Amino acid sequence: MSDEASLLAANAAYYRAFIEGDIDRMSALWGEDDVACIHPGWPALIGREAVLASYRDILRNPMQEPIVRRNERALVSGADGRVLCVEVVGGAALVATNWFRFTGGAWRLVHHQASPLAVVPAETPPERPRSLH
Amino acid sequence: MSDEASLLAANAAYYRAFIEGDIDRMSALWGEDDVACIHPGWPALIGREAVLASYRDILRNPMQEPIVRRNERALVSGADGRVLCVEVVGGAALVATNWFRFTGGAWRLVHHQASPLAVVPAETPPERPRSLH
Repeated sequence: MSDEASLLAANAAYYRAFIEGDIDRMSALWGEDDVACIHPGWPALIGREAVLASYRDILRNPMQEPIVRRNERALVSGADGRVLCVEVVGGAALVATNWFRFTGGAWRLVHHQASPLAVVPAETPPERPRSLH
Repeated sequence: MSDEASLLAANAAYYRAFIEGDIDRMSALWGEDDVACIHPGWPALIGREAVLASYRDILRNPMQEPIVRRNERALVSGADGRVLCVEVVGGAALVATNWFRFTGGAWRLVHHQASPLAVVPAETPPERPRSLH
């Protein structure tokens, strides 16, 4: 897989773990060091322990709306890979940054921030990694 | 200067350029490649040209409220440095990620995202870089 394709696969795994409420998978996706997370409306959480505690609460919450990702854009720069995408949650749209670092043979999350969009954007076709033509 | 101190100085320069409406200084602070920016409510902007065009519009806007930064936290990992901070704009509070990459002897912005906070947080004292004791 190209860097972009593997990065997009890691991003898909993040949303699958979210949708399935799989905290073990979510934990494995997050890096060990230098991690930070900003959920919509929340202050910044810094450090693996605080970040995973927040996901434990969110994934256990029975009122949590399902989340659908779309309009993914991948930006790879060396061992750093960002995916910018739209999250549709309960009729509202957010724009998310999922920042991964390639370490130990896998893309691990080091940063997530999601913020509300003023306008729900049109859906765009899935991005085709450039190296696949 | 330590890495954290120089990173916080770059972050201060970003807000100074914003407050002073200095588009030349803002342009110099942003990196050349792999840049992305998510202003509050906006979709993701990708690429230097789109990002700087957005700042040109924002900095020229006479209705733009002054912006005050506080509660800065610096995370340095090799050539990557993130500052998470609170932006107070017209009575509302946002949480911002300013992601810099150290290149050509300077910290250059590669990513900015600001999203509204549900609660305006208390002000914390300025962070003292650990290496200064």
